[in-house]
Parts: sequence; C-alpha cells; structure tokens
Amino acid sequence: MERLKTFEEYLRQPLEERLPYYEKNQRVYHVMVSQQFSYDFLMKLFDTADLVKHITHKPNGAEFLASVLQHKRAMLYFTQPSTRTFLSFLTACQTVGMNTGEVRDPSLSSELKGESQEDGLRTFSSYFDAIIMRDPKPGFCEYVAYCLDQTSRSVPIINGGSGKDQHPTQALLDVYTLYRSFQEQGGISGKTCCFVGDLLRGRAVRSVIYLLARYWKVEMYMVAPDTLQIAPDLEHFLQEQEIKVHKTDNLEEVLPHVDSLYMTRVQDEYDLSQESALLDYSKFHLTIENVQRMQKHAIIMHPLPRRHEIDPSIDSDPRAMYWRQLRNGMYIRAALLLYLFNMEHRLAEY
Amino acid sequence: MERLKTFEEYLRQPLEERLPYYEKNQRVYHVMVSQQFSYDFLMKLFDTADLVKHITHKPNGAEFLASVLQHKRAMLYFTQPSTRTFLSFLTACQTVGMNTGEVRDPSLSSELKGESQEDGLRTFSSYFDAIIMRDPKPGFCEYVAYCLDQTSRSVPIINGGSGKDQHPTQALLDVYTLYRSFQEQGGISGKTCCFVGDLLRGRAVRSVIYLLARYWKVEMYMVAPDTLQIAPDLEHFLQEQEIKVHKTDNLEEVLPHVDSLYMTRVQDEYDLSQESALLDYSKFHLTIENVQRMQKHAIIMHPLPRRHEIDPSIDSDPRAMYWRQLRNGMYIRAALLLYLFNMEHRLAEY
Amino acid sequence: MERLKTFEEYLRQPLEERLPYYEKNQRVYHVMVSQQFSYDFLMKLFDTADLVKHITHKPNGAEFLASVLQHKRAMLYFTQPSTRTFLSFLTACQTVGMNTGEVRDPSLSSELKGESQEDGLRTFSSYFDAIIMRDPKPGFCEYVAYCLDQTSRSVPIINGGSGKDQHPTQALLDVYTLYRSFQEQGGISGKTCCFVGDLLRGRAVRSVIYLLARYWKVEMYMVAPDTLQIAPDLEHFLQEQEIKVHKTDNLEEVLPHVDSLYMTRVQDEYDLSQESALLDYSKFHLTIENVQRMQKHAIIMHPLPRRHEIDPSIDSDPRAMYWRQLRNGMYIRAALLLYLFNMEHRLAEY
Repeated sequence: MERLKTFEEYLRQPLEERLPYYEKNQRVYHVMVSQQFSYDFLMKLFDTADLVKHITHKPNGAEFLASVLQHKRAMLYFTQPSTRTFLSFLTACQTVGMNTGEVRDPSLSSELKGESQEDGLRTFSSYFDAIIMRDPKPGFCEYVAYCLDQTSRSVPIINGGSGKDQHPTQALLDVYTLYRSFQEQGGISGKTCCFVGDLLRGRAVRSVIYLLARYWKVEMYMVAPDTLQIAPDLEHFLQEQEIKVHKTDNLEEVLPHVDSLYMTRVQDEYDLSQESALLDYSKFHLTIENVQRMQKHAIIMHPLPRRHEIDPSIDSDPRAMYWRQLRNGMYIRAALLLYLFNMEHRLAEY
Repeated sequence: MERLKTFEEYLRQPLEERLPYYEKNQRVYHVMVSQQFSYDFLMKLFDTADLVKHITHKPNGAEFLASVLQHKRAMLYFTQPSTRTFLSFLTACQTVGMNTGEVRDPSLSSELKGESQEDGLRTFSSYFDAIIMRDPKPGFCEYVAYCLDQTSRSVPIINGGSGKDQHPTQALLDVYTLYRSFQEQGGISGKTCCFVGDLLRGRAVRSVIYLLARYWKVEMYMVAPDTLQIAPDLEHFLQEQEIKVHKTDNLEEVLPHVDSLYMTRVQDEYDLSQESALLDYSKFHLTIENVQRMQKHAIIMHPLPRRHEIDPSIDSDPRAMYWRQLRNGMYIRAALLLYLFNMEHRLAEY
Repeated sequence: MERLKTFEEYLRQPLEERLPYYEKNQRVYHVMVSQQFSYDFLMKLFDTADLVKHITHKPNGAEFLASVLQHKRAMLYFTQPSTRTFLSFLTACQTVGMNTGEVRDPSLSSELKGESQEDGLRTFSSYFDAIIMRDPKPGFCEYVAYCLDQTSRSVPIINGGSGKDQHPTQALLDVYTLYRSFQEQGGISGKTCCFVGDLLRGRAVRSVIYLLARYWKVEMYMVAPDTLQIAPDLEHFLQEQEIKVHKTDNLEEVLPHVDSLYMTRVQDEYDLSQESALLDYSKFHLTIENVQRMQKHAIIMHPLPRRHEIDPSIDSDPRAMYWRQLRNGMYIRAALLLYLFNMEHRLAEY
C-alpha cells in the first residue's frame, strides 16, 4: 500500500484527479461536490425523490419506507453549528428507517485525549454505515473519504456543507425544486435563473450553478453589489459552458425577465471584522412591491435562513417556494440515502 | 389574509379570545393552557392513558403501541433547561412509536445567522408533525401556534412548560394521579386537596388548580408563607368557581383533614437576587413525624425535583405517589399524542 | 426497611461484600466490576456475541435482531466526556432494537434546581429499563445500583467506565477479541499477554487482567516505566492467582515472546499538573520496525483513542486488531443487553 497523502497533499491535487475517488462501480459513492453529479444521476435521483414524496402520503407508506434501510445506521457529524441541515438529514434518515448517532460538540469528543480527527472518524466508520458531516475546514470531508477508502471498512461520506466550500445536497434540493416547479412548463432547460445577494461567498449559489450547467440553454442573471459578484473561477466556468450570464446590481429591472429568483443573504458570519454592516443591502431585498413585477409563473427561492432578503408577507404568495424547498430537501436526502445503499429499486415493491 | 399580529399584540388579547385558536374541529389541537381542557376531554384522556399503561404490560403490547404513530415525528424544542419533562416526552413519543428530533441548546441553532425564532420554528413544522416546546418567554409557544396556523403547514404545538407561566401536561399528569388514586373512593369530586410551598410562582400548582375546578365540590387548603400565597387572580378564579379555600401557614394543623397533599419547592431560580435563602422554610417541609398525622388513604404528591420538602425516608410509605407521578406522566403524554393525531381508537384493536 | 447507607458507608464495605448486590437469581444483574464475571458467564456471553455478529451479516438478520428488545429502553447517562464508548453503547442498543435517551451535559439537568443525583437517577429508572452510566466519581454507579435496589423500581445499571476506576465492558470486549483471535490456536489459556504503557492508572488494563485470571496458565509481561508499573494491589492479586508476571521497561526484548500485545496511552488527562509531558515515552511506542520482531500469529491491541503509541502505518498489518476491537465492542455490548433482559435464547429463533 502506498503511503497515505497528508491533508495538504490531498487537496493539492486538482479536482479532476480527486473526482474518481468519489465513485465506486460507476456510481456515486461519496457525496462531495456538485461537479460529480451527471445529468443522468440527477434524473434518477429526482425520480426517486418523487416516489419518496408520493409514498409518504399514502396509507402505510411511511411505515413501508421506514423498513427499507432499517438495517443501516448513519453518523451525523456536525462540528459546525447547523440546525436546519442537521434536522433535514436526521428526518431523511428517519424517513427511510435508518438509526442515527450524532456528534455536534467537538469538545465532548475524545479529541480531548489527543486523538487525531482521522482516527475519530475511522471509529465512526466502525459503528455506522454512512457518515454525514459538516466540518469548518474546507476539503476536510473529502480527505476523510480518501483516508477511509484506504482502510478495510470504507463507508459513504456525505458532505453536509463545509466552510465557504460546497454544499452539494443543498444544490440537489434547489435543482429538484426547479425541476418540480417547471415540470408543466417544459423543464429547466431554456429557463432564465436569477441569483441575488452575496454571490461571492455563498456556497449554495456556487453549488447550484454547477448543476444548472447540466441543463440545456439556461440563462443567468447575477444581481449583486460589485464587491460581492461571482468569483472569477465561477465566471470562467460559465463561459466555458457557453452559458449566457448578465451581471448587474439592479434587481428591479431584472425581475420581469426571470423564471426563477434565488435570493441569498450576506454571509457576514465569515468576516465580522469587515464593515459590511455599513453597506446598504436593501436594494437587494425583495419587497411586496417588486414581487408585482415578476411573471405569474416565476418562482422565488431562498436557501434559508433569511434575514431581511424577503419580506415575510411574501410567504403566502403562491410563487414563494422557500418553505417548500425545506420539504424537498428532506425528500431528496432520503432519495440520496436510498441511492447510496442501492435500494431505490425497493420502492417499486410498494 | 390579514396582517400577522406581533407577539405583543397577540398576548394583549384576553385568554378567552385566544382559547378558540387552540381547537380544530371541536377538538383540542394545540396544548397550551389548563383552562382549555373540559371535563369530557379529561375523562377521555384518562381512559386512553389507562389503556396505554395496561397494554404496555401485556405480551407484545409495547410493540403494538410502538406501531400506532410510527409514521409521525415530533420536535422536542427545549431551550430552557429541563431533563425530567424532556425525557418524559421523549419516552412518551417512543412509547407510541414516534421518531424525534431535538433542539436543546439555542446557541447551536441558526439564530447565529440572524434568523427570527418564528422562521426557525416554521422550519421545524416542515420536518416534524408536532412541536413540543419549553421556552423561557411566557406566552411564546402560544404565539408560535398562532403564527403556524396562518401558514399552509400548521402542526400541533404542545406547551412543555414556559417561564413562570403554565405547564399544562404537568397538570394533566397530576390530576390523572389523583383520578387513579381515588378511583376506589368515589373519584376526585368532594375531596380535600392541599397545596404546600411556593404557591405564588410555582406554575404546576396554578395549572393543576384550573383542572380541579372541573370537578364537583373540591375543597382546598393553601399552606404557604404569607409572601408566597396564591396570586390574587387565582384566588379570584377560585371564588368565581365557588371553591372553598382555606389559606394558612400551619401545615401540621391541616394534615389530618386532607385527602391529597401537593408539596412544592421554592422556585428560587427565578429570583436569586432575593434574600429568600434567609427565610426558614422548614415548617413547610414534610417529615416522617407529620406523615403520621395524615389519613390512611391520603396521598402525597410532588411535581419533582424536590429539595428538602419531603424527607427521602418517606419514599417507601405507600401514600407517597411522587415517583408514581413520573410514570403517570409518561402514560398521559403518550395518551395525549394519540389523541392529537386522532388515533386513540386504534388501541381498541389490541 | 433498614436505613439507606450513605455513599461513603457503601464504599467502605469490602468488594466481596458488595459483589452479591450485583446478582439476582444467580445471574449478573448490575454490570459493575470485572471481578464479578465467572468463566461460565464469559463463555456464554461470547457465544451470544458470536451469534449477534453472525446474524447481523445475514439477510434480514439486522431486522430480526432489532425486534428482540424493541420493548425496552436504555438511558445513556454520560456526564464524563466520551464519544467512543457512548457511541458503542448507542449502536449496541440500536442493534437489539432498544430506544435510548441520553444525558451528557450535567449542566442541562435539573441539578440546577437543587435535586440530588440519586433522585435524578431514580427518575431515569421510571422512564427507562436500564441505565448505562459513566460518571467521574469512582464507585458512584455501584452506589446508584444499591440505592435503586431499595426502591420498587430497580433496573440494571451498567458501568460504562468511571473515573480511574473500572471499565468492565471494555474488559469484556478485550477478552472477547483475544478469544476470537486465538480460537484456532487452542484458546486464551497458556498464552503470553503483554501490557505496555501506563499500567498504573489505565483502568482498561486493570479490568482486563481480572478477566484473564479466569483462564488457565496465562503468562504476563508488564512493560512500563518504573513510575507507571502496575499498582501493588494488582500485583498482589496476580500473585494470589499464581500468574507468572514479568515486569520490565524493555519493549523490544519482550516482543518476540508474546502472543498478544496490549498498548495503552499515558493517561495524562488525570494529572495535567504533573510534568509527565517531559518524560520520554517513545520507547513504549510501537514502530513498524519493532512489529517485525513479533510472531506471525501475535496480535496488537489498543483500547483507543491512541496518540503516538502505535504508528498509523501499522494499521494495515493483519496483526493489528485495534479497529476490530471497536466492532467487537458493539457485538459484546449488544450480547450483554440481551443477557441482562434474559433474551439470549431468542437468537435461536433466527
């Protein structure tokens, strides 16, 4: 066996060299980055999520679903604060019948006793059949997946959002919401999607854009203050994909043209030192008045939590999809677990 | 849709105007305050609790019960420290087969990211079918129930004890304990119930008194130091209900006359600043000696945790009911969950 | 009823007088100390653990196992930090279908309200059918078992490791690992077992040695710096049992002679004040080079977490058993739960 790469060595490899590690038997095995999902994978997963949602609402459907992965267990390793994503994964596990264990406060762990975090995570792989993790260190869950793959007991690792990095399951639920919303309108291809807010640092936007690139002829509006526009590497990626992108800081002007509006908040928990609180972000907030300017079929999304980006009185507008995104998240994560354990086919039994 | 009331506006409404919000289809839907429980509701719930207890002890009974609400999930939102009530609800959920999620440390939540608590709780209603909550702000869980009712995804909210406020499920388990204890002695009506300790601030006492008022000809002794006697509004309520009340600070004198003795501790965690530690509360403590003065059939209750109110050597006296109250709490909460999901009738299948 | 002994009075009794408390109907009832396990008990438990492991890997085996104790609940009371042991017990409970509740942060508990810890634990015994506990006070879980036995609702207490004290289930998993490893080599009797590191304070070593004394003609090497050699009472015990013991500080010299090597870390979390960090422990660390000196069939164990005692590159050597110990721990704890509820015989149904 070759010597184990260190964390730094591992991340020094370009993404294209790392991607093959995340597959086994030509299927997604570790869930790490949006870039690893093919169009076919998305279609298959969305079908499974549709089925999960459908069966949940049928008599004895919930009981049936809860029997499918009853023999599997998941570790929820969330050392970065998160309630929403944590609970979404927890309830997704419960939906398909998986037992769970959790580590949420790293100070409770045996790191006190000087153990390496790699050893700690290897311990979890002895007790659990999958590890869902959110850790503040960018790329760390990729490295854990790599390390476990070198042992005799590898288990799927699911990136539950890491640092400023990626949040692949948020991207899946976002695109699943678009997929469901445009089902009667010819699908996602050809639609005009608008992203608003902090496009530089919000990992949700980055992750979802990689997935939208799988669709045909999507057009994009990027509405942000100059200092928070999309990063150069992301812009380069969109150019390569020949996706038409409009950058602007004028939300009102754009509203009548979009099919979907993806609002985000300013990620100021990452740089509280900065004087970002002094900037006026109110022109990037959605008000009852400017919702009037949107098309009847257009939808409003938000990864949540929100602050002032969307006036709560918009919540009852039929175009508001952000609360529905939450439930879609639960269905898509349940579908993902079924996929990872190769059990989607069991749903046909119902 | 009318504009949402603010928290302050909502609580400004008199209780009688708020009570109808807590019912749907003429059944209790949100569990908020003792005042909302009718005599018929109590009788029905106690029957269900009896059945839960009975079935638990039969072969395969526990397995049967755990299948009844297997398709439902509860959120335990306990941002105020509590072990006892938390575990009672947890095990009640497990008894009827519900999966659970929990939030116990508000600092772990996405409040960090500036989300409103209302949004946070709406999130939970997307993932869970009921929310059991204990929050330090008086009236807050009532307001949450009101807010969720305005959305397309309302779920039952259960008040697990809020601030100095109400603790309705504690009241249910207390009266259920009285009901069981006096089953062979003509029931609760006509009995003499005595409350001892901090009657001003203990929410358990307040909640249970509202329920006892549903019974016929209950007489009450209130034993407390002058500064901790029952609040004027509660005294007024008892007068209106034509309940005979004796206020005194002499416990020994009262003991021979009571059918039930409800001991409480001084709630000094609410005002550590006060010099309450200097007062001598020992005359409001129950000793082995003064238990001798009680009638043979009388019972001793305590909402627990206790400090010095009851000498531990009394625990083995057959009149001590406080440990049994704990188990009754589990049964009554399980019964309540079955009721809220309209599933009590399923118990007849067993 | 006689007066309850105080904690101090209880512990003042010699161990031989306490041991009978831990049995009921001539079976182990409370799991407290290694000394209480007979050879017959070990053999029976190892058979059950073998069956648990075997059934887990069969189709529908996990589902079958998870039905056996579905009607029982366990409280995990871990007020001393622990992730590994906590999760091992949690997943053991899940394996046999038990629901669980947990208390991990004593500050969240109602100790705030002045309740005694004995009252708190009696509360748990009202809600749960077994209490698994790790508490920093040596002997405290023995005292809790004694207190609960005086009430009408005693439940089995399992010592999950207490202070510098005992860790009986760690000992069970260690000896189970030896049992499995030497199954094809005539069993544990007659083998040479070597312990390395902090033999004075590590509770794992102490606990496992008591069990090895149940086997015939085991020989032992104790490799440690003089200041951390085994305690006088343990040495006296080994003499009484006529077990041949070699004390040395030379690991390299010993390696060719041993059948099992049990590495431990220095327990410096117990005395951070001491200058132990200044001592050179590297001669008590296992390197790739000195693994070469070991016999082909010998095995390497470690209770984990490790620091520098074992070079991670040894992990892939087939003699490295420490990761397998983790999974054995889950199986043996599941077997123990089945035993405590008298349900081992149910495995034959599968």
